[in-house]
Order: sequence, then structure tokens, then C-alpha cells
Amino acid sequence: MSKEVAILRYGHRPARDKRVSTHTALVARAFGADGIFFDTTDKELKVNIEGVVERFGGPFFVEMGGSWSDIIERWQTKGGEVIHLTMYGLPLPEVIEGIKQSPKKKLIIVGSEKVPGEIYQISEYNVAVTNQPHSEIAALCIFLDRLFEGNAVRGSIQFKGAKLKIIPTARGKRVMECNS
Amino acid sequence: MSKEVAILRYGHRPARDKRVSTHTALVARAFGADGIFFDTTDKELKVNIEGVVERFGGPFFVEMGGSWSDIIERWQTKGGEVIHLTMYGLPLPEVIEGIKQSPKKKLIIVGSEKVPGEIYQISEYNVAVTNQPHSEIAALCIFLDRLFEGNAVRGSIQFKGAKLKIIPTARGKRVMECNS
Repeated sequence: MSKEVAILRYGHRPARDKRVSTHTALVARAFGADGIFFDTTDKELKVNIEGVVERFGGPFFVEMGGSWSDIIERWQTKGGEVIHLTMYGLPLPEVIEGIKQSPKKKLIIVGSEKVPGEIYQISEYNVAVTNQPHSEIAALCIFLDRLFEGNAVRGSIQFKGAKLKIIPTARGKRVMECNS
Repeated sequence: MSKEVAILRYGHRPARDKRVSTHTALVARAFGADGIFFDTTDKELKVNIEGVVERFGGPFFVEMGGSWSDIIERWQTKGGEVIHLTMYGLPLPEVIEGIKQSPKKKLIIVGSEKVPGEIYQISEYNVAVTNQPHSEIAALCIFLDRLFEGNAVRGSIQFKGAKLKIIPTARGKRVMECNS
């Protein structure tokens, strides 16, 4: 499997979606994706995400601007495939093995409330993480967990250049400062 | 394992957290919890969550109000145990088997930004879903996924009284209306 996996957050609205989009990006990073594209520009959001990358390590890119259709077309033209997470799609267990076996780099689309019908058509896969309404954050997290076979939860992702590291503890908070 | 699993969403702020708290509650429902407590009252939030339960099935309770410490004390007095999800806690793989084997009913605490130190002390477990910053929605989702051994993703949770059912499809949206 190619290791290149990026997220496209469709339709971020700065006034409304800042917290949900921040969670989406942080989940992408923590669960092993390489970076995230946004089809709108929100400087405050970018600063927030990059601040976490700076403190807790990377690499993880944040790219903003450009239309969603251009981002998708560019990805597919370069030989990548597109996976749209939607509760209307095919159940994850039915498709995950095929996705894992495909050598193509993967762009995972997570939408805000309404995603245009065209995205359902141009995506190679429309995948449902349960066919119940819940959260694009949860859908992304479970998708990456299954794609990467639980490596984030096992703690086997290495983040480089971290300034802070959490030391697991039964009660309270332990944070180590790292020398760079 | 007792089947009773509820969530306590600590510190919901109606003006700021509505969407993240909605996602938290919908993830709780979709991944098999019995219901959610909030230590603040937000009628709009309650109506939204209960609307999903009415359309897509239940049972799933939403209880609002009362202090977090009363909610926790009541749970523990009735023989339940408390699991606080925090990136500072012990790694999930180290503790999940013990949690699964314990017959006690489980209250899972997911906080908003700052959780009081007392919650770390009175919880039986402080559990980290990765020791990286990401999202309480993702943490809850992975925790329930591991606790219930992937049953939500496999589609084996049965929701009763649903008026709508999604029919999985490769492209587009198919929704079936159910007769009650």
C-alpha cells in the first residue's frame, strides 16, 4: 500500500465549522494521514493546526484554497484514488481490503453537512462507517484506524520534531519537554 | 460484561459546543452506548439528538442538568465505574481488557477543553486513545469500538423503531421509509 494518504475537508465554513474542522485535522494527523486540504481559506484554523504540529510533531501539511473539484482532479490525474466517507456508502468491512490492497495514494473526502452529488460520482469509493448518522470526525478516525490496522492506538506512529510529549499516567497529567 | 454504558459530556457550553456535543451524542448512539448525560441544559441540543433517535431508532436517552459530581457520585453509589477519556491517561491497549472483564456498568466521561483535576482522581480509569491531541469524538468512538469489539462497524447493532433506514449503495443515496 502506498503510504500517501491525505484528507479533503469539503465545505469548511469558518464561522460555523472551526471546531469540527480542527478536530478533523487533528484526527487526520494523530491517526497517520500525511496532511489535509481545505477548499476554503481560514487562517486562524491553519495557525491552530500548525501550532499542534509544531508542539507535538509531524510532518503534517495543511493546504487551503482552490476548488474541491480542482483538488480532486489534480489528485486523480496524478494517479491517486478518492474515497468519500458518507453514511450512504458501502459498509467499510466490504471495501476496506480492496482499498488496502490498491497501491494508489488515497484522498479521503469528509464533508460538512451537504456534499454535492458530483462527489459521489467521481469518487472511486463511497464508504460508510456504519449506515447511521454520527460524525465525520468519527468516520475518519475509524477509517484510518482500519486502513492502518490500529497503529495509532497501539502508539506506533512516530512524530518527528515534537517539543512536547505526553507521558501516560494513571491519574493526572505528565508532559515532557523535548530538546530539539 | 454489563451492557449498560453511558456517556457524561462534561462542560458543554451551548453557545460554543453545540456541534461537537451533537457529534459526541450521535457517536455514542451509533457505537452502542445506552445514553448520554450533560451537566448543562441545552434544549435545542436535546431536541436535535432526540430527533435522530426518533428517525433512526433507539433506545438512547439524553439527560440534562445536575452537577457533574452528582452524576458521577450517583453512578458510583449504584455500583458503576467511571472511565475518563483523556490524552494524559494510560494507553487504551493496556487497560481495555480489564475494563471489558469488569462486570460493572460504565460511565464514560468526555470533556470539553478543561476538565477539573478532581475528575482524574475520582475516575476508576483515565484512558488515552493515543497520547496525541485530537478529538473527544474520535476518542469516544475508538473506545466504544474496542469495548464492543467492532460491532457498530460490522452493522450488528439493532436500532428499534426506526422510521428511516439507509440502504448502502456504491453511488448516491438510498433511504427506505419504515412502517412503524
